[in-house]
Amino acid sequence: MTSPASRLGALRAELARQGVDGFLLPRSDEFLGEYVPPAAERLAWLTGFTGSAGLALVLPETAVLFVDGRYTDQAAAETDPALWQRRHIIEQPPADAIRAEAAGLRLGYDPWVHTEASLEKLSAAGAELVPLATNPVDAVWRDRPPPPAAPAAPHPLRFAGLSPAAKREAAAKILQEAGEVAAVLADPHSVAWLLNIRGADLPHTPLVLARALLRDDGGVELFLDAGRADEALRAHLGNGVALRPPDAFGAALDALSGARVRLDADVTPAWIARRLRTAGAEPAFGEDPCRLPRACKNPVEQDGARAAHRRDAVALIRFLAWFVEAAPRGTETEISAAARLRALRAEGDLFVAESFPAISGAGEHGAVVHYRATPATDRPIRPDEAYLIDSGAQYRDGTTDVTRTLWTGPGAPPAEIAARYTAVLRGHVALATVRFPEGVAGPHLDALARRPLWDDGLDYDHGTGHGIGSFLSVHEGPAGISRTAKAIALRPGMILSDEPGFYRTGAYGIRIENLLMVRPAEERPGSTRRFLRFETLTMAPYERRLILVDKLTPAERGWIDAYHARVAAEIGPLLPRNDTFWLKEACAPL
Amino acid sequence: MTSPASRLGALRAELARQGVDGFLLPRSDEFLGEYVPPAAERLAWLTGFTGSAGLALVLPETAVLFVDGRYTDQAAAETDPALWQRRHIIEQPPADAIRAEAAGLRLGYDPWVHTEASLEKLSAAGAELVPLATNPVDAVWRDRPPPPAAPAAPHPLRFAGLSPAAKREAAAKILQEAGEVAAVLADPHSVAWLLNIRGADLPHTPLVLARALLRDDGGVELFLDAGRADEALRAHLGNGVALRPPDAFGAALDALSGARVRLDADVTPAWIARRLRTAGAEPAFGEDPCRLPRACKNPVEQDGARAAHRRDAVALIRFLAWFVEAAPRGTETEISAAARLRALRAEGDLFVAESFPAISGAGEHGAVVHYRATPATDRPIRPDEAYLIDSGAQYRDGTTDVTRTLWTGPGAPPAEIAARYTAVLRGHVALATVRFPEGVAGPHLDALARRPLWDDGLDYDHGTGHGIGSFLSVHEGPAGISRTAKAIALRPGMILSDEPGFYRTGAYGIRIENLLMVRPAEERPGSTRRFLRFETLTMAPYERRLILVDKLTPAERGWIDAYHARVAAEIGPLLPRNDTFWLKEACAPL
Repeated sequence: MTSPASRLGALRAELARQGVDGFLLPRSDEFLGEYVPPAAERLAWLTGFTGSAGLALVLPETAVLFVDGRYTDQAAAETDPALWQRRHIIEQPPADAIRAEAAGLRLGYDPWVHTEASLEKLSAAGAELVPLATNPVDAVWRDRPPPPAAPAAPHPLRFAGLSPAAKREAAAKILQEAGEVAAVLADPHSVAWLLNIRGADLPHTPLVLARALLRDDGGVELFLDAGRADEALRAHLGNGVALRPPDAFGAALDALSGARVRLDADVTPAWIARRLRTAGAEPAFGEDPCRLPRACKNPVEQDGARAAHRRDAVALIRFLAWFVEAAPRGTETEISAAARLRALRAEGDLFVAESFPAISGAGEHGAVVHYRATPATDRPIRPDEAYLIDSGAQYRDGTTDVTRTLWTGPGAPPAEIAARYTAVLRGHVALATVRFPEGVAGPHLDALARRPLWDDGLDYDHGTGHGIGSFLSVHEGPAGISRTAKAIALRPGMILSDEPGFYRTGAYGIRIENLLMVRPAEERPGSTRRFLRFETLTMAPYERRLILVDKLTPAERGWIDAYHARVAAEIGPLLPRNDTFWLKEACAPL
Repeated sequence: MTSPASRLGALRAELARQGVDGFLLPRSDEFLGEYVPPAAERLAWLTGFTGSAGLALVLPETAVLFVDGRYTDQAAAETDPALWQRRHIIEQPPADAIRAEAAGLRLGYDPWVHTEASLEKLSAAGAELVPLATNPVDAVWRDRPPPPAAPAAPHPLRFAGLSPAAKREAAAKILQEAGEVAAVLADPHSVAWLLNIRGADLPHTPLVLARALLRDDGGVELFLDAGRADEALRAHLGNGVALRPPDAFGAALDALSGARVRLDADVTPAWIARRLRTAGAEPAFGEDPCRLPRACKNPVEQDGARAAHRRDAVALIRFLAWFVEAAPRGTETEISAAARLRALRAEGDLFVAESFPAISGAGEHGAVVHYRATPATDRPIRPDEAYLIDSGAQYRDGTTDVTRTLWTGPGAPPAEIAARYTAVLRGHVALATVRFPEGVAGPHLDALARRPLWDDGLDYDHGTGHGIGSFLSVHEGPAGISRTAKAIALRPGMILSDEPGFYRTGAYGIRIENLLMVRPAEERPGSTRRFLRFETLTMAPYERRLILVDKLTPAERGWIDAYHARVAAEIGPLLPRNDTFWLKEACAPL
């Protein structure tokens, strides 16, 4: 093991060798995704910081790590203050640091790990930004893990619902209508969706980290090591998909000289846009043509989601029935409880992995929105406190994500926690029950989930809902339910989370999360337009000990009772007999 | 009077003289506002169409008038089908017509009456767009009315609250911080606000149609005919404001050569941006520096709004008390009722004019959102129907805008109308009562007002709320409460309307509108951030005969009763004794 100081020293020597004074290193990799494989954990290797977002600025004498509010504590704990200054990325942004501390310097960067927009924000700050041909971290990272090499596998039609040929034809039509010759698919989620392939390159998202070119005739070039594609995969891909080595990608872009080529600025590395321009192609910035079709699950995917959620409900309800007994004893910890839930999920058919590391937070840890219990932070779950468990799974037929907040007992909860839980639940129900006309987007619905808290002068500092893939990422665009989400009209088949919360720092956290699927609403007499509604996919009882029934409207109480009755009827018969007793109690009318 | 055919013929001859094949004529004038003076009613003169938005495309053989959905019927009634094709501006957009019918032609336009963005939409359509030095309509419009020439007058400090010097200093600071040397104030609303001047150039908005240049030292050049500025106005403007003839504006732009000059693309004619570029200035597109400060009324303007609304309430309640007696007799018409309300308003102190032509619609006319009764459409208000009256006034201390929907009686209303009225009222109350954290914008609150209708599969086809000026325009940006409004965070002092509705074509219309003012909310225990709430400015009873009390939640009923009690307490003492009896009944608890 090298020391953090020697790593930073080696990097500075490499920067000098490459002829620059400093370096900008974000957490993202060449695929710009939320998760990166071990080979791309450059920021963690260099700084020690393991959070999911951050940016390092290495200068000749100083080095600064920028992280957002979620990660200020973690960055302080994981990095050496003698080597790294730590700054809040919003309050003390990198551009300010460049202006003040790097004016006139040559700052290197790897054009594969930034979008053009992210570079633009940094480039107005007075330093000279210099693209480097190779990432200098890779040159000095001696024990760097190998890049992902596991084989890619077909995602069968019985889960995908549409053949790759049908999808390619539909995506090609989008290009034809826009007068574009090709599209760069820089986002591996789009490649996975379009070609019905899945992989194991990341622990929680079944991706193959690969990119592709889509032609306006529906033809695709997939840039993937031949060794990762066996006979079965080649047969699955068929004639319309040509397999090319990853290092042929640049030449393929060069061959687009003179052509109008679609690029999605949000998901495309700067390297690609520049290479296209240099080649004399005409970049046409627009939405990745797979993004919206991917978000709107087809009927087979919709049924898959329902089936996956039934299996997930079995595991979660078994966990809850166990937890009610175990928690008051105080013998479990955050890590042991999460491990139990994972083991119960793993018993289900088609289970592949957790869809993200479970957030298992007791008491004050529940107030840390992105808490992750580690051996260093793990603590017993104690009697008479709130406990928050946010978790999910990847099943071959669907992806789940669910949060429940529980009262450990055996005593009654304080009035404040029950009041907050009830307000959060009322907001959660308000969103789950809304009917809305076509054209309404997530940002327009966000306030419905917040209003009960707003009435008390309270709020939560995260979005209300995010999109979810179909055996793909647990965070999927383009739609979301928050004030900062793009105003993308909600469409049938989209799956979004409904997860309002309330957090009192140092004391407790509350979050209640179900997944909702958009579907056409039944017609009402006199209605002159098409309405949509949500179908609730997640099935698990709420924590009745935290519900103040007299704070609910008759409609809210009626909806919760009906939901509980549905959970009991649909999941009860799937449970081991022992757990059915608890479920019956948990689902009795309020 | 010339005939529509001869006007079109004369225009075509003039186009030939100016060397173009066709012409694009929007309804807007050189100030791009919602209302235009008679001298700028070019579209009405040419086509006969008098609506507030539209675009004419004149080609050698054909001529097309494009209007939006509000105006399709009116355009058909007002124009000659032998001369004018009528098209829906969204469904059959002008760019399509240019592509299909004007490819390769030279199409003239007046660069003063388009923004650059609006031209860009038209220019990709395959014709050659040719800016003309003079508007060809003006050359052939023989009896064109003279341009506005009434004197401009000071808007006294007791209404404006801030001196022009203080406003100029604050606006200049915005330019300094942005590194801009000057800003073009192309919007007369900004000129009026910044310099505390008002005029009579338009019937409903007390504007002086003038533009100005603001310097980063706070100095202003106001481009206004010297004959419109008397001694008192010159004294009011003071040393920091130089009066220049309007035709010196181009030269003033030329003098900005080399300077960074702010332009608001939304409100600036293309002519201005181009002249600046030609002069070698650097246009910096950004928000008009007066726009947000103007929207956030200062404490004096806030008190003015309250006082204006009290006087407006007196007039409206006197009208309502009279209407309840008059309506069942069937002797009044839409026009006579609106005239009575106007006359009652005119008795109030500081009354200047209606803030827009009142919308007075009985029965099926109530379903026409922008209905305007004319001698041709006027009809009696009959017993037992719904009647909608949307009206407002310009007082020197504030602008009002209020809608009430009434049941004429003497019979009871049909269940359907009462159900719809109750749903609209519930949405109206939901918006009026929301508390929300700083940062929330209008588009995030729109759904609150619609949800009771959405629950029944119903909706309305207009925004829920628009901004209102302080003795300025009844429609004022930048904030609005609708899905299509910009996401501008609401700020204390903004005044917005709350006007959900429901319309059944051919049958009846319902709209309920109050004005709301944003203000800081009282702190709640445990709250960790600043919240805002609305203060309701408008005071007039709702139509209790249309309220289904058992459809209200206890909170809704409580709010309506408290509102009615406030109206009775605050306005009762200001009424003639005869009207107090009706008000007491109208404001009794439900």
